[in-house]
Amino acid sequence: MDHDLTRDFLACFGGLAAIGRDPVTGGYRRFAWTDEDRAARAWFAAEAEARGLAYERDANGNLWAWWGNAASAGEGRPTAEWGSRRAEAPRAGQAEAAGAPRHGGALVVGSHLDTVPQGGAYDGALGVVAGFVAVSALVRRNVTPTRPVAVAAFADEEGGRFGLATFGSRLLAGALAPASALDRRDAQGVTVAEAIAGDGLDPARVGPDPELAGRIGEVVELHVEQGRGLVDVPAPLGVGSGIWPHGRWRLELRGEPNHAGTTRLEDRRDPMLVLARGVEAARALAATAGAVATVGRVLVDPNGTNSVPGAVDAWLDARAPDEATLDGLVGAWQREVAAACGQHRVEVGLACESRSPAVELDPGLRARLVALLGRRGLPAPELPTAAGHDAGALAAVVPTAMLFVRNPTGVSHSPAERADDEDCVLGCEVLAAVVEAWACR
Amino acid sequence: MDHDLTRDFLACFGGLAAIGRDPVTGGYRRFAWTDEDRAARAWFAAEAEARGLAYERDANGNLWAWWGNAASAGEGRPTAEWGSRRAEAPRAGQAEAAGAPRHGGALVVGSHLDTVPQGGAYDGALGVVAGFVAVSALVRRNVTPTRPVAVAAFADEEGGRFGLATFGSRLLAGALAPASALDRRDAQGVTVAEAIAGDGLDPARVGPDPELAGRIGEVVELHVEQGRGLVDVPAPLGVGSGIWPHGRWRLELRGEPNHAGTTRLEDRRDPMLVLARGVEAARALAATAGAVATVGRVLVDPNGTNSVPGAVDAWLDARAPDEATLDGLVGAWQREVAAACGQHRVEVGLACESRSPAVELDPGLRARLVALLGRRGLPAPELPTAAGHDAGALAAVVPTAMLFVRNPTGVSHSPAERADDEDCVLGCEVLAAVVEAWACR
Repeated sequence: MDHDLTRDFLACFGGLAAIGRDPVTGGYRRFAWTDEDRAARAWFAAEAEARGLAYERDANGNLWAWWGNAASAGEGRPTAEWGSRRAEAPRAGQAEAAGAPRHGGALVVGSHLDTVPQGGAYDGALGVVAGFVAVSALVRRNVTPTRPVAVAAFADEEGGRFGLATFGSRLLAGALAPASALDRRDAQGVTVAEAIAGDGLDPARVGPDPELAGRIGEVVELHVEQGRGLVDVPAPLGVGSGIWPHGRWRLELRGEPNHAGTTRLEDRRDPMLVLARGVEAARALAATAGAVATVGRVLVDPNGTNSVPGAVDAWLDARAPDEATLDGLVGAWQREVAAACGQHRVEVGLACESRSPAVELDPGLRARLVALLGRRGLPAPELPTAAGHDAGALAAVVPTAMLFVRNPTGVSHSPAERADDEDCVLGCEVLAAVVEAWACR
Repeated sequence: MDHDLTRDFLACFGGLAAIGRDPVTGGYRRFAWTDEDRAARAWFAAEAEARGLAYERDANGNLWAWWGNAASAGEGRPTAEWGSRRAEAPRAGQAEAAGAPRHGGALVVGSHLDTVPQGGAYDGALGVVAGFVAVSALVRRNVTPTRPVAVAAFADEEGGRFGLATFGSRLLAGALAPASALDRRDAQGVTVAEAIAGDGLDPARVGPDPELAGRIGEVVELHVEQGRGLVDVPAPLGVGSGIWPHGRWRLELRGEPNHAGTTRLEDRRDPMLVLARGVEAARALAATAGAVATVGRVLVDPNGTNSVPGAVDAWLDARAPDEATLDGLVGAWQREVAAACGQHRVEVGLACESRSPAVELDPGLRARLVALLGRRGLPAPELPTAAGHDAGALAAVVPTAMLFVRNPTGVSHSPAERADDEDCVLGCEVLAAVVEAWACR
């Protein structure tokens, strides 16, 4: 046990965990482009400076703390907010002669700082903290990088305010069209363009950044596990195999509003009865398919106690191990809902609001992570995730891997989300070993 | 066909139908103590004055247009808003010697002027209009009352704003405690006391009015039928037999909020799945019991597309032909919901928010209405209603009857609510015949 690393982890994690916490529930609310986001950004810049890393904010709002070549490491390079100048991050290829990395460019570790409403303390935060702690552990041992290393925090991963998940990483990777993103509005009618302009970014500069992306060699995102995938193995850490394809479908059910007392059952066209069938069908079909499906958002009109509803809108969130299974699940669900609509004379519309393809994380990086865990005597289960991640967005343009830290509650996106300090510290140690093995000899 | 009556009906109904109508949907919004309510009150006062009836607003906000004894009828008695003086309505018993009514006091016809949100044009309105039209028809034929007759509009029957249905009639009858009623708040936090004080009533005077109630001999409420109970007979008019016992139960389901992607199905505690079972069980149990049950209001928290909900609140509206059937239905429903809660590890609370007992409308009055319809060669089906009515509230203190007018759509509490002019005119003619037969010879 590295006591300095443990102390560093507790102090670093504790600093971030003080920002945006609801004192009553213990849940977090750090939405992008808000006061809490600015406080988290200041925390990131201060942690970078304290470690002698060069702070940079890119045009899409992603944060970078560069551990440069041996010459610049630990020298307290000046930090730069966007608009002054880019930090002098080494160019890809500069370090290749020294360490012969499999891929040219920088090794990027990190995750995100924003949260869902009433989110947990670990989702995103743990990966950023682990990056800082890993770099410091190597600096303390006088290990120096042979190619650039960066700790990154990608902007607005959760999409809590504008509904655009993995905003910063998708823009960087060219997987999100700037024009449509900038026009999106929050619940108060504020556009993304207005929000980011108010937070110091230039909406005209948002978009793909092939120059920056080209400087990245690999990405390793450490993240708290969001289910019980490691609890039951048991294993403190795991290696991500891929991200399930997933999507959101909006169901619009239209019946006939009516009096709840005087309308005979046989005269009703009640969309709530169709919703009930849809909720149960989603669960049953997911169980059969080895997938997950959720109806978590429902809007009822007029939503009156003594009214048969006229309209129910509901959203299906469905995720499956592969595209064919997902398609099959959603198709079967649509048929069940249509049958219920026929029975209750309810009209139906179904629209896919978003669809994320399956992501296979880089097989080579996964194999190296599994081997590294094995050399430390640790179990190295590979497991997929059904959550979206910055790593998934970036996997389209650079080799990407994920390391998961055990979550004893299995709960995520909730104040009950947990990770034991011991497991977090082990995650930091392994991440330091990855950085040392891949970018420091 | 009485052409004067038809013209009177169309003009009178048209005047009220211009108030509070949504020009887009055709639905009505005339909530109590609002501008629309004041406009409807002005319409009522003007219709009373035009017919020579004495206008009165009582301490609970109910409106009265008195067709007094023979001497005062048609003489354009001065009208009085509350606070100046009570209209000089004749006292109960004054007319008994002339006509020997079965019950002392006034014959009251009428209904209410307020609506649910997006309500129909006929609910309540038709009964008040029919009262005015019936009196005018008799006045035109120089028929004079032998005991007092009143056209009444009871305050806030629907409870659209404060959730207190049959507000004015229950207060008058002593069936609603003023203290708890006055403290109720609307969605903006305004109390009933504040709202009625702002509309010219004295909150300190709200409450039981035995003096006024004691002047009432019988109540006949004409109302648009709210289902297809007359369409299928077929019959243009029907006689109310009683009001089903009914109630509202609030279901509070508490599970665990979680990530919709990463939480395995078997780890979930999803209250939406319990809701689905509850919705389907309510329908199935009601069908078996010959009752109606509806889940029309649902609140989900956090109501996010990618969140397993942590909490779902839902309301059950249930109504049955008798108390035992209603109790059995709600008990069986509670057991089904509890079983689903056990299966999904969801905690449950169930609270009865309101409960209205069965009301049997006065058998003597019903028999006289059936006989009167028969003498006119009309079918006279007796039918219960599962809706609450001012007649139900008043039945506890005075003999009360209801006349229903056919609703060809069977739809109520909706812009699609309808009644044919021909059936409405027939309803007015029959109501005039009732007033003539019961209070004019």
